[in-house]
Amino acid sequence: MTFDDKLGLQVALEEAKKGFEEGGVPIGSCLLTEDGKILGRGHNLRVQKSSATLHGETSCLETAGRLPASVYKKCTLYTTLSPCPMCSGAALLFKIPRVVMGENDTFVGAEDWLEKSGVEVVNAHNDECKELMQRFIKEKPEVWNEDIGE
Amino acid sequence: MTFDDKLGLQVALEEAKKGFEEGGVPIGSCLLTEDGKILGRGHNLRVQKSSATLHGETSCLETAGRLPASVYKKCTLYTTLSPCPMCSGAALLFKIPRVVMGENDTFVGAEDWLEKSGVEVVNAHNDECKELMQRFIKEKPEVWNEDIGE
Repeated sequence: MTFDDKLGLQVALEEAKKGFEEGGVPIGSCLLTEDGKILGRGHNLRVQKSSATLHGETSCLETAGRLPASVYKKCTLYTTLSPCPMCSGAALLFKIPRVVMGENDTFVGAEDWLEKSGVEVVNAHNDECKELMQRFIKEKPEVWNEDIGE
Repeated sequence: MTFDDKLGLQVALEEAKKGFEEGGVPIGSCLLTEDGKILGRGHNLRVQKSSATLHGETSCLETAGRLPASVYKKCTLYTTLSPCPMCSGAALLFKIPRVVMGENDTFVGAEDWLEKSGVEVVNAHNDECKELMQRFIKEKPEVWNEDIGE
């Protein structure tokens, strides 16, 4: 399968920026098909909706709505930051075969688990994702710690 | 830590029954403190809210709202059915030290991952949880398959 990773990551980053502007945790996500269709996009809503489980990826999967297994199997899930255990688990639950992250310098989620389970994991080493996240953590460390259960 | 497992599982089962009555996937959950305070309770909302990620456990964590890590660390998460990878990941994310499931005859989630990660996992072998779930799967197999990405 070949995917437009530039598009997928760009949409995820747009979502992350939206989150930052709203005062929230700036992590964005996008669910993309092989033929470039954006099935879902979303960003972390901890602050905006007082939500414990609407991370970038789960928020994206929520906007994608109810989908049959056959659709997820042909998608890539993009996220601006290494996916936490819950979001990695969501990718595994729906058997999404490929996950592209913007970076994992800021935080390392459950990448190992994804890879061991046969998911293709790609790190885009994107500076913009990293700078946005590190700026947020510097400004609001307590919100970030809460988001990752620290 | 000692918990009132009877109470926790009872609340989770009440939620599952509520879900069944609403025509939804009958999986319920409860987040309980050691001193018996119910911090959250919820049930799967796939059908009711066209939600892909509001499983019993995530729905429960949503109603519990934003909590500091120090609170989760002193809780047990109850669920009527073995927790899927996403919900197991949610427990790991928030470092919830103990998970009690109603049963795992119907479905086996990511229990192994929880145990390997140091979470105490208890199976209550509850017949009522099992009967409710199996009745639902018999009546609406396509909704159940969608819920677990099959």
